[in-house]
Amino acid sequence: MTPAHNLLTFINAEADFAAARLIIFGAPFDATASFRPGSRFAPAEIRTFSQQLETYSPYQERDLSEISVCDIGDLTLAHGNAAAMVEAVREQAAAILAARKIPLLLGGEHLVSLGAVQAAAAAYPDLLLLHLDAHTDLRDDYLGERLSHATVIRRCHDILGDGRIFQFGIRSGERDEFLWSGAGHTHLRKFDLGGISETVEQLQDRPLYLTVDLDILDPSVLPGTGTPEAGGISFEELRAALTMICREANIIACDMTELCPPCDPSGASTAVAAKILREMLLALG
Amino acid sequence: MTPAHNLLTFINAEADFAAARLIIFGAPFDATASFRPGSRFAPAEIRTFSQQLETYSPYQERDLSEISVCDIGDLTLAHGNAAAMVEAVREQAAAILAARKIPLLLGGEHLVSLGAVQAAAAAYPDLLLLHLDAHTDLRDDYLGERLSHATVIRRCHDILGDGRIFQFGIRSGERDEFLWSGAGHTHLRKFDLGGISETVEQLQDRPLYLTVDLDILDPSVLPGTGTPEAGGISFEELRAALTMICREANIIACDMTELCPPCDPSGASTAVAAKILREMLLALG
Amino acid sequence: MTPAHNLLTFINAEADFAAARLIIFGAPFDATASFRPGSRFAPAEIRTFSQQLETYSPYQERDLSEISVCDIGDLTLAHGNAAAMVEAVREQAAAILAARKIPLLLGGEHLVSLGAVQAAAAAYPDLLLLHLDAHTDLRDDYLGERLSHATVIRRCHDILGDGRIFQFGIRSGERDEFLWSGAGHTHLRKFDLGGISETVEQLQDRPLYLTVDLDILDPSVLPGTGTPEAGGISFEELRAALTMICREANIIACDMTELCPPCDPSGASTAVAAKILREMLLALG
Amino acid sequence: MTPAHNLLTFINAEADFAAARLIIFGAPFDATASFRPGSRFAPAEIRTFSQQLETYSPYQERDLSEISVCDIGDLTLAHGNAAAMVEAVREQAAAILAARKIPLLLGGEHLVSLGAVQAAAAAYPDLLLLHLDAHTDLRDDYLGERLSHATVIRRCHDILGDGRIFQFGIRSGERDEFLWSGAGHTHLRKFDLGGISETVEQLQDRPLYLTVDLDILDPSVLPGTGTPEAGGISFEELRAALTMICREANIIACDMTELCPPCDPSGASTAVAAKILREMLLALG
Amino acid sequence: MTPAHNLLTFINAEADFAAARLIIFGAPFDATASFRPGSRFAPAEIRTFSQQLETYSPYQERDLSEISVCDIGDLTLAHGNAAAMVEAVREQAAAILAARKIPLLLGGEHLVSLGAVQAAAAAYPDLLLLHLDAHTDLRDDYLGERLSHATVIRRCHDILGDGRIFQFGIRSGERDEFLWSGAGHTHLRKFDLGGISETVEQLQDRPLYLTVDLDILDPSVLPGTGTPEAGGISFEELRAALTMICREANIIACDMTELCPPCDPSGASTAVAAKILREMLLALG
Amino acid sequence: MTPAHNLLTFINAEADFAAARLIIFGAPFDATASFRPGSRFAPAEIRTFSQQLETYSPYQERDLSEISVCDIGDLTLAHGNAAAMVEAVREQAAAILAARKIPLLLGGEHLVSLGAVQAAAAAYPDLLLLHLDAHTDLRDDYLGERLSHATVIRRCHDILGDGRIFQFGIRSGERDEFLWSGAGHTHLRKFDLGGISETVEQLQDRPLYLTVDLDILDPSVLPGTGTPEAGGISFEELRAALTMICREANIIACDMTELCPPCDPSGASTAVAAKILREMLLALG
Repeated sequence: MTPAHNLLTFINAEADFAAARLIIFGAPFDATASFRPGSRFAPAEIRTFSQQLETYSPYQERDLSEISVCDIGDLTLAHGNAAAMVEAVREQAAAILAARKIPLLLGGEHLVSLGAVQAAAAAYPDLLLLHLDAHTDLRDDYLGERLSHATVIRRCHDILGDGRIFQFGIRSGERDEFLWSGAGHTHLRKFDLGGISETVEQLQDRPLYLTVDLDILDPSVLPGTGTPEAGGISFEELRAALTMICREANIIACDMTELCPPCDPSGASTAVAAKILREMLLALG
Repeated sequence: MTPAHNLLTFINAEADFAAARLIIFGAPFDATASFRPGSRFAPAEIRTFSQQLETYSPYQERDLSEISVCDIGDLTLAHGNAAAMVEAVREQAAAILAARKIPLLLGGEHLVSLGAVQAAAAAYPDLLLLHLDAHTDLRDDYLGERLSHATVIRRCHDILGDGRIFQFGIRSGERDEFLWSGAGHTHLRKFDLGGISETVEQLQDRPLYLTVDLDILDPSVLPGTGTPEAGGISFEELRAALTMICREANIIACDMTELCPPCDPSGASTAVAAKILREMLLALG
Repeated sequence: MTPAHNLLTFINAEADFAAARLIIFGAPFDATASFRPGSRFAPAEIRTFSQQLETYSPYQERDLSEISVCDIGDLTLAHGNAAAMVEAVREQAAAILAARKIPLLLGGEHLVSLGAVQAAAAAYPDLLLLHLDAHTDLRDDYLGERLSHATVIRRCHDILGDGRIFQFGIRSGERDEFLWSGAGHTHLRKFDLGGISETVEQLQDRPLYLTVDLDILDPSVLPGTGTPEAGGISFEELRAALTMICREANIIACDMTELCPPCDPSGASTAVAAKILREMLLALG
Repeated sequence: MTPAHNLLTFINAEADFAAARLIIFGAPFDATASFRPGSRFAPAEIRTFSQQLETYSPYQERDLSEISVCDIGDLTLAHGNAAAMVEAVREQAAAILAARKIPLLLGGEHLVSLGAVQAAAAAYPDLLLLHLDAHTDLRDDYLGERLSHATVIRRCHDILGDGRIFQFGIRSGERDEFLWSGAGHTHLRKFDLGGISETVEQLQDRPLYLTVDLDILDPSVLPGTGTPEAGGISFEELRAALTMICREANIIACDMTELCPPCDPSGASTAVAAKILREMLLALG
Repeated sequence: MTPAHNLLTFINAEADFAAARLIIFGAPFDATASFRPGSRFAPAEIRTFSQQLETYSPYQERDLSEISVCDIGDLTLAHGNAAAMVEAVREQAAAILAARKIPLLLGGEHLVSLGAVQAAAAAYPDLLLLHLDAHTDLRDDYLGERLSHATVIRRCHDILGDGRIFQFGIRSGERDEFLWSGAGHTHLRKFDLGGISETVEQLQDRPLYLTVDLDILDPSVLPGTGTPEAGGISFEELRAALTMICREANIIACDMTELCPPCDPSGASTAVAAKILREMLLALG
Repeated sequence: MTPAHNLLTFINAEADFAAARLIIFGAPFDATASFRPGSRFAPAEIRTFSQQLETYSPYQERDLSEISVCDIGDLTLAHGNAAAMVEAVREQAAAILAARKIPLLLGGEHLVSLGAVQAAAAAYPDLLLLHLDAHTDLRDDYLGERLSHATVIRRCHDILGDGRIFQFGIRSGERDEFLWSGAGHTHLRKFDLGGISETVEQLQDRPLYLTVDLDILDPSVLPGTGTPEAGGISFEELRAALTMICREANIIACDMTELCPPCDPSGASTAVAAKILREMLLALG
């Protein structure tokens, strides 16, 4: 685990690795994106936009100065080799978990989550997965490839098995994916976050991996994503839910993926992502 | 009726013309746009973005593979001659109606609807018109021109007469247009879709032409339109209403206009339009 | 006071200065913007986009032709000298107030308001300030500078003193700013416009300066601003509140700031700003 | 002839109409554009960008303050009616010519030139036409329309007849257009401006209309045009030629067309057009 | 070999496969792009922009109607698997070569060329490679990956061996790449096309694969590429050279890569690429 | 002098300050920009784009690994106070010069140069200034302000006096500026770099400050600048001249200013700037 030395960090995420409880790292990879690539630029853009954020949250009445976060920068990844990327993410996440810290992975496309889930499942055999997304991501393959942004949750299911994946906000997928989920493989809530509080309460203290595909947000809030899906949730719904989850659940690792900065020249999407990351850090910290 | 041979179709709209019940065609025309042209690019961009759509709708739990749609491509139109464009649309729509199929016209600017309404009124003398839009479009002329995106519903009234046009969502127009409507010429609901279910119910089985100007949506949802009007309806309001209308009413022809892709570099507006078209097809099919 | 002679005006704002009750002028200045400059282009772009607006408002059922507005154009300002800009705005606003008219100032960045508040406080010693914004703007200095978009309301407090500033919609600031406000210096409502009707009612006929930082709107509605802050209010909330305020309160001067047209290539943000200005004019006129 | 009253002028073009020798007016029309519309925005954008120009030319060592130019603004044109536009341009140009002044028309698309050439030919029966362009523009019709940006020089030939049109820089057209020209109808120089000095010299004092389609420039210099054609001339070649022509020939009217500002978000194309206009004015003045 | 059925073709490239001598196909793949992805959109955008091209070339005085070209559309490729993409390209190119036709491959990134070179080398054991590019592309691996846009010519050398690769226009690379070339592995001309005519003459009738990385052009001509390198050649230099090569050499297969349409919102880069393709077709046909 | 700790450096510019001979620092300031701000983003964008550069130059056959450069990041500057910015730059440059190193300042707007020239003139009383620019920058004030991008060379003249400033490439300015220069105050070469070799030779070993305003380049090469001026020099002319100057002259400090990344969405302008900086470093190192 060699942190990058050439780094602009997320605002105030400048603690020493040893001292920090939360560790941010980026996986600037978008090679399996089927429609519009560009999520590789998300980690760097989120850091840049974070400079305009206040460190204080009037929602939580907490300040980033009260918590200890270390942003170790981005992995160096060769594009065009999805398997190598997944392994690099897995190694980095495993090292952070081994140091008894919480990794916060910034994609990149959603496939980056797989490496972190592999590491988390190895460290926590009874791991559960909470998945916020517009898309099912449950295909077994995509054009013959088993490693894809469209298959990532199915690959997580390969690890975790039935009943341990909780999906919310899903509003797009193939019929077969919905049927497969409905056959008992995952818990899937269509369209919104209804029941998410109850779910979190039921999970109690079991170790939980939280994966947030930002396209769960409505494209009016976050047009900057590779595959915008109309009909998503609002910023306030996501902010409130994530704050609740990060406070109430036993999050042992998490990620935020699929921001595609070049798709939104206004930058508003990146500003949204940076603010959500601040709120997650404050709720986890 | 010579379908274009050089064509990328809307997703799954590849049935033979003879076999299909729904026929998509485009009118890439924006020559009377008063502010920002570019809606001519809408049909092609909707087709491109449709490739990223799933064929399955979790809203309706139906799949495009279950219905039979034929996308015959775009008319070849000379810009700068509005009358010739209207006639070309009329001919194409008439041919589709004569084959006892439902034309689904993609604009282009709203004036394209006139040709299709002409054809529909010829085929169905008791035709009614359901108009979803931000704008009244009831001027008698615009800078002296009688054929304009700002006069199109007035021209439809020339054909249909009083009391047969139902307008919803209207939030912009000249005072005189509102007064003219209020004098009994059209039914006009300001700002939202309030009462649209009751209206559809009352229309029973009378033949209905449905014209959707996408600027009825709030610009946060659809910034990609020539004349954005703040204060519009949400995607979910439009999606739900259109599904209801397409299922409950006797739609004999319809259109979707005024998407202007170059006005929204994020592409989110085009993604919205493509998804609405999918939902309309599934509800009509 | 020499009005610019080389001018495209806001739609219908072509009354003679002497005859008009409402006077629009622009301060195309963004030199203290800490993140993304470009609000200097707002006055010109608002005028251009206003050409596509109808003069009639179906919300208020009033028409710009019924009221008398004069748009005198933009101040000529040297960038890089914030103090000189504030003084130029103060002079222009004072001249308008001296003519017993209502100045309506278009920024530029929020610091432009300071000059107008100075003039208004000089003309109305019991002036109150109503502040709609995403940001507190209560820092005493920003990187050592006391004149900044981030300090402007604090500078207004220097003039007005405790208890005379009413802030709404605030969702971003340093902890110290919230604490300072809470110590009795300003009235501050977090996140939304809750209680604004009651506040306006309590103010009765006291002279009121209204300052609107457009970033109070959610970035989905107005991505075109230098520092987008997720979680803002909707267009309809702002429109309704401003109409109420402009009708019910004794507005003696007002402004609208922080639209940054280059940040939103779709132009939808500018369309929103132009429409809000129309509604304000109609409610004030 | 009612000059617009709501106007930002080209820099220093603020002389009274009566006093001025050169009269600028705009025709913001692009309705026949076959590929990408947007040239309607050219006159307004050229005026805005002209504000950043110096009034002094180090090339000609002259200053705009030495000459007398009046910019009367833009015609109000209904889009979608090419014939009405041509007539409106003709009327305006005729009025300027009747006042013994030189009209300088800003397009819009190239079809705008037709109205001005009609007026010029009426005023000067022995008129010649000098045409700088990437395209032949010699089609007899375009998709059946005789009034089009692709037919404009052919329509001019209808008026002027054989041998009176001199085309330079032509690098795109149908084979039939080149053949038609070669049959003695026009003088046509492919690719560059070779021989243009000799041509101007031969024309002596005969009245000359100069029409400049800016797409004669290489797209590296002017990407902001509807139909970019690689392989064009350089800025310096065009600048030098236009200065020579405007000084040496007997220009009685001229135009500059086909700048499409939305096609070049960098604005460099508009800066080029503004500078060329300044040089033309200084050479004509 | 199943040609795509859902296709907008390059202009006039609508011959039957069996009848055509030149076969266009696209490989919309950019997964190994190290800086800015987006070249996947090149084939579709080139086809769209080709609609605005004339079929006639005044340079060659030939028309596309005189030759027989079939555009079979794009391969369906899973992103994220470079090896599978190379194999898919190889298969398609091999099928075209087996039919005794000339494949013209449109990237996508430069790695797409590898599959076509594999097929060509299998069909023509004495194959030579002519490489026009800004970059050496001679690395043995890139971040450990052997299949990359930065290694593609090295991989071709694995097939062809020493002295059979001729590189022109090279202005960027690692020192080691230049040294490796200089050790006799390839013929490399820095910066420009100097000597290319002599090279082509020497090659006589030996079968030649021509690979054109469009970033050989100066970024002023073609900003729309993932890795713009200042100091490139002009459009005219490239056009003239390609015409000469396609006429004089025994081209048995060729490609054009690395246009990245999203990187150039003006579209001028795509217009350049479309025109170059037209000239290549006319010279080959 | 506290170097920034939160830094992405220019490629390979990671030497220790103590060990480095060349010190890069940025002044992200654009507050006096009269037309389009945005040059504040240049240092960060140049660093980002430099990651795609090779460290090796085939022009000079040198590699950045052979020289020792330290990039200390950007100054923290309050916008809106030009005098404070100049002083901050002066302090930083003075500290670097005191350490007997060469400062390489990245603007920001051209006014940033003033602080560095102040420091250089203090350290080297016989300092000369070599100025490459499209603009004279010789105004005594701009709208009353003496500190402006349009006055910066005049302010340098205040320090250096007559005959010690050498200006090349100048193609824009007020007549009075050219006259003032011509009265013996500066040496000024219009339009190009003619005679620059002879000038450098004559200067021999006298200490020289080199200031490069990138708008000296033609806008086709560098559209990304606030005030594009058509008719500039080519990349190759600038590259060759700067290499010669940096090798032959006794450069004791230098800068590169006026890149405005938001003005060029293609990024090609930033790529040009990064490459020029690499070549300057290699020639100086």
